[in-house]
Amino acid sequence: MSAKIEKVSIIISKGSLEGVYPGLIMANGARAEGMEANLFFTFFGLDAVHKARHEHIKLATVGNPGLHLATWAGGLPGVSSVMTHYLNNKMEQLDIPSIPEFVEMIADTGAGLYACKASADLFGITKADLIDQVKDIITVGEFYDMAAGGEIIFT
Amino acid sequence: MSAKIEKVSIIISKGSLEGVYPGLIMANGARAEGMEANLFFTFFGLDAVHKARHEHIKLATVGNPGLHLATWAGGLPGVSSVMTHYLNNKMEQLDIPSIPEFVEMIADTGAGLYACKASADLFGITKADLIDQVKDIITVGEFYDMAAGGEIIFT
Amino acid sequence: MSAKIEKVSIIISKGSLEGVYPGLIMANGARAEGMEANLFFTFFGLDAVHKARHEHIKLATVGNPGLHLATWAGGLPGVSSVMTHYLNNKMEQLDIPSIPEFVEMIADTGAGLYACKASADLFGITKADLIDQVKDIITVGEFYDMAAGGEIIFT
Repeated sequence: MSAKIEKVSIIISKGSLEGVYPGLIMANGARAEGMEANLFFTFFGLDAVHKARHEHIKLATVGNPGLHLATWAGGLPGVSSVMTHYLNNKMEQLDIPSIPEFVEMIADTGAGLYACKASADLFGITKADLIDQVKDIITVGEFYDMAAGGEIIFT
Repeated sequence: MSAKIEKVSIIISKGSLEGVYPGLIMANGARAEGMEANLFFTFFGLDAVHKARHEHIKLATVGNPGLHLATWAGGLPGVSSVMTHYLNNKMEQLDIPSIPEFVEMIADTGAGLYACKASADLFGITKADLIDQVKDIITVGEFYDMAAGGEIIFT
Repeated sequence: MSAKIEKVSIIISKGSLEGVYPGLIMANGARAEGMEANLFFTFFGLDAVHKARHEHIKLATVGNPGLHLATWAGGLPGVSSVMTHYLNNKMEQLDIPSIPEFVEMIADTGAGLYACKASADLFGITKADLIDQVKDIITVGEFYDMAAGGEIIFT
């Protein structure tokens, strides 16, 4: 029963830096362990595979007390950019790839990348708007079929 | 082993528009596939089944870089309402029901709706405050009993 | 198949009051039911087991429409502290322990506490920075090994 996890289906639903990385790290770790891994991008998480947007994902500096910024400071013009820049620099030092590079790397390991149909319709996004690594835009039902026999992780 | 998912237990813990919809869409999709689906409303997610609040759920316009609003703009009076109105309009065009309608629809498909006891106590909420479709206010232990044999999805 | 859940592996990834409590409540409930329970602290969730920070976790008052504060009001200096204080008081009346007490209580029930290596590296955190109840700083691969045979809950 507790032999090994065979498959993970990771949903990325948020469009902030700290919303996207955990799912990518978990997908990458799963592939490194030889597990099947699929990533499903939904709602604002779609930005991570959107050609025009995936290089511009920022840290949420307000509504994020974990940053230990004064709440009003987080809302000042430029603060989100500065903090994002700071964190990106630190990640570079640690050899953590940027989101576009990381997504490409994960696709190269054989993980499947999918976009959510309901969200794509809502935002008027078509397959042409998404990076080539995205295999398909799929429905919730198709997601469940793919996820069967593994763990679903909603991030 | 990977035959089919039999059951999903979806926890809705956030009280924003983009926090509530994913769980509803996943519950609805599960029922459409003939899977057992139960929804558990906890913390601010309780708003989605609260009689006085379920019609007033808004998009989080700050702390949500996915919206690509300047951070300071998201905090301006009225911006959250305007963006919520805009998204609601788009959803209407796509035949995505409003949250109160969607919750009712999902209950009609036979999904179970439950509220979390710890959260209800915290906010001083009783069963009378919640929409009639909520079957019960339950403990975490009762949740786990119901979720056994399926996938738990925390949103 | 739907006998009982044997194990839960709960990931805490957020550093706000409303981001940390749900995972703690679910871990505590799992132990009360005699299930194996492990907690994994990652990203801003690390604050909940950080010696210098775990007593200072605040409610997110912006980006949290569930609070029904005007968006601009949530960003005013002091509002996050006031709301956090108010909620903490209410929790005290309901015998809900503070985060540091709750984490200690859960560790005492035999749940395992772990920190995520990638996040610890990113924030320059070592084991000495974390409370003694944290057993180890582990990789994603080690997490999956521990989680096998149970439910993964990402909060």
